[in-house]
Amino acid sequence: MSRADRSSTAIAILSDFGYRDHYVGVMKGVIESIAPGARSLDLTHGIPPQQVNAGALVLAQSWRYFPQRTVFLAVVDPGVGTDRLPIAIATHAGAFFVGPDNGLLWTAAAAAQIKQIVELKTARYRLPNPSSTFHGRDIFAPAAAWISRGVRLSSLGPPREQIVKLEVTTEARETSRAIEGKVIYIDRFGNLVTNISRGQIDRLAARDPRFAERLTQGRLEIRLGRRPAFRIGRAYGEVAPGRPLGLFGSFEMVEIAVRDGDAAAYFGAGAGSRVTITAGK
Amino acid sequence: MSRADRSSTAIAILSDFGYRDHYVGVMKGVIESIAPGARSLDLTHGIPPQQVNAGALVLAQSWRYFPQRTVFLAVVDPGVGTDRLPIAIATHAGAFFVGPDNGLLWTAAAAAQIKQIVELKTARYRLPNPSSTFHGRDIFAPAAAWISRGVRLSSLGPPREQIVKLEVTTEARETSRAIEGKVIYIDRFGNLVTNISRGQIDRLAARDPRFAERLTQGRLEIRLGRRPAFRIGRAYGEVAPGRPLGLFGSFEMVEIAVRDGDAAAYFGAGAGSRVTITAGK
Amino acid sequence: MSRADRSSTAIAILSDFGYRDHYVGVMKGVIESIAPGARSLDLTHGIPPQQVNAGALVLAQSWRYFPQRTVFLAVVDPGVGTDRLPIAIATHAGAFFVGPDNGLLWTAAAAAQIKQIVELKTARYRLPNPSSTFHGRDIFAPAAAWISRGVRLSSLGPPREQIVKLEVTTEARETSRAIEGKVIYIDRFGNLVTNISRGQIDRLAARDPRFAERLTQGRLEIRLGRRPAFRIGRAYGEVAPGRPLGLFGSFEMVEIAVRDGDAAAYFGAGAGSRVTITAGK
Repeated sequence: MSRADRSSTAIAILSDFGYRDHYVGVMKGVIESIAPGARSLDLTHGIPPQQVNAGALVLAQSWRYFPQRTVFLAVVDPGVGTDRLPIAIATHAGAFFVGPDNGLLWTAAAAAQIKQIVELKTARYRLPNPSSTFHGRDIFAPAAAWISRGVRLSSLGPPREQIVKLEVTTEARETSRAIEGKVIYIDRFGNLVTNISRGQIDRLAARDPRFAERLTQGRLEIRLGRRPAFRIGRAYGEVAPGRPLGLFGSFEMVEIAVRDGDAAAYFGAGAGSRVTITAGK
Repeated sequence: MSRADRSSTAIAILSDFGYRDHYVGVMKGVIESIAPGARSLDLTHGIPPQQVNAGALVLAQSWRYFPQRTVFLAVVDPGVGTDRLPIAIATHAGAFFVGPDNGLLWTAAAAAQIKQIVELKTARYRLPNPSSTFHGRDIFAPAAAWISRGVRLSSLGPPREQIVKLEVTTEARETSRAIEGKVIYIDRFGNLVTNISRGQIDRLAARDPRFAERLTQGRLEIRLGRRPAFRIGRAYGEVAPGRPLGLFGSFEMVEIAVRDGDAAAYFGAGAGSRVTITAGK
Repeated sequence: MSRADRSSTAIAILSDFGYRDHYVGVMKGVIESIAPGARSLDLTHGIPPQQVNAGALVLAQSWRYFPQRTVFLAVVDPGVGTDRLPIAIATHAGAFFVGPDNGLLWTAAAAAQIKQIVELKTARYRLPNPSSTFHGRDIFAPAAAWISRGVRLSSLGPPREQIVKLEVTTEARETSRAIEGKVIYIDRFGNLVTNISRGQIDRLAARDPRFAERLTQGRLEIRLGRRPAFRIGRAYGEVAPGRPLGLFGSFEMVEIAVRDGDAAAYFGAGAGSRVTITAGK
């Protein structure tokens, strides 16, 4: 491996391993052993335990912000030790994805346009005697490290035609006059991320002139639980401290926030809470 | 960019983003995309949400321990989306500071002696179409990465004369015979960091021979809440396990600790709790 | 320092500093100042506050997964400021260990075969005026950085013959027909790691043909608290979701898990809970 090869590929790591244990640290030790000087970047290890959906959502929202040829090592793996396959994916966009074939990789990889899928089976690219409980260390981290060193996917194992598909951002329901969605992620600040995308808002606006007018005026109304309706604005600064507003969040989904506050607490809302957007009265 | 350039500048990142979400990871992806091989070091992401004061204190205590030309990327930004400015600062000490102009950078930058301030406005050094909710990703991380690559501050935007000043370490009150301060930070171990500095203790000792004598003898008394007074010592080992003591902490402020214990729990104390130091009886 | 030197040694950091404060970040600043471009890898900072035993266990389980010449910087240090010594250890396996002489380093260093021990005393390889509260920053991080740059242990201070020994994995008790152990670590997922090793199971099997037979059949029984006995299997997939099983975990100790669940909650178990393994009826 030349130094140039090395600096061309970062490894971004996502997991539900948290920060209390040594699991992530040990994976980095394995990566450093195989690919000395590899640039491991923590995407996050705070995915709630075994919540494949949350991991898939985060990966789908994040991959575009990394260099083109980044290897994404993603481990949210409740099925470790069952017959779910360990896989690696190459994409036309340049990104690689390594992890369990349980849907975790699907949304991101599909957006990056899947080019090649392999099952991680070649013994020389795994640790010897892989455990049945920690494929992150024994199978996935080695594969990511070898890919970052330029090993071809076809060397890592046999090709696969299909992978498990998990739609994390099932679109909200559109009626003639409203969009009915739900909260799909709550961040540290209590912001409520919904499954309503900017694209969906724009589509309804294209069909309904009144909806379009209100969108332009910043007067679309959003409802959540029993609190009064509030507006979709452009920035926190449009409302007074302590007041709610909806906005297109940093990942182009409608988010609900409370200025200088915590929207999850304000609304008593959680993942799954229903959200409705209308043109208002 | 030559390799030599790259190795000359680390990027130290501080935020209130926590460890549950992907916000920090995405910022690192942006940095790696702009400045491949950049050395991003996490100062901490555990600043309590939107507490600019705590972030400013931590930054002020930490910057001296990094290499001279480090770029500090600091994001505690309750005003994102309002008219608060995004700024970058160059200092005579060599450090750069990038973040919101809300006081977060002030104490550290002033200590490093401000040389130049600019508003981060040049479009080519931001991500395209910056969001109104995540300037860490869209404006601050790109600026830090470009500065680490050697881009001049004057290229990033127009000069500014002033920044928002926030005094995080308002000094404790000195009377003729006592220093009256308060708890300003509680760490993971329950140690209580006060706003009473070693310098302030030394000044009172220079005025009051009895205070000076007790300081030398390690017999100054410290009071907090309803618990009996205890002494300011030099090291945890001077008291029995479970007993409190005051000491000059690792950042030269008076800290209150309980040996092998948790002072916050022992005293039922929090940020703002009053602390008094006297020469004793 | 040549670039080749730099890339030859990673620094793996373990502490109980957590993620809320800036202590770890400041240590990384110190390392980067002394050894620019050093590769600091976080093993974990989530060791429970001041629990030397947990830190020692994690270090013992992890060091083998890092490159041969890694410097392990380990700080769980309730005795900072007492007369416990700061030390560094070189081993025949190639790993270095730096930290307090309180037993934290013992199990891992002994496994790596201790070659040389020194007390960290040489002033020029510490920060000036070390505090009595933060040797991680003032003594240990500098020592680790200098070792990563190739400074000899003998330069760091006088040799020591002995270090404090702390047996973290006191083996479980073997009777003629059973192994009686206990839970020694609970991970983020609620998995219960016991002090019963695969080697101990194999030894009892070598003495007791019935025990050996049941082991081969996957029918050894394990008991914990008042719940019915359950089996030691090979992978989570062998039981239904929500059901418990024992297995040889990723570090070759018997672990107790609940498939798609949390064993600590299921059993109401914690560190110290008793675990018994028998051949069953």
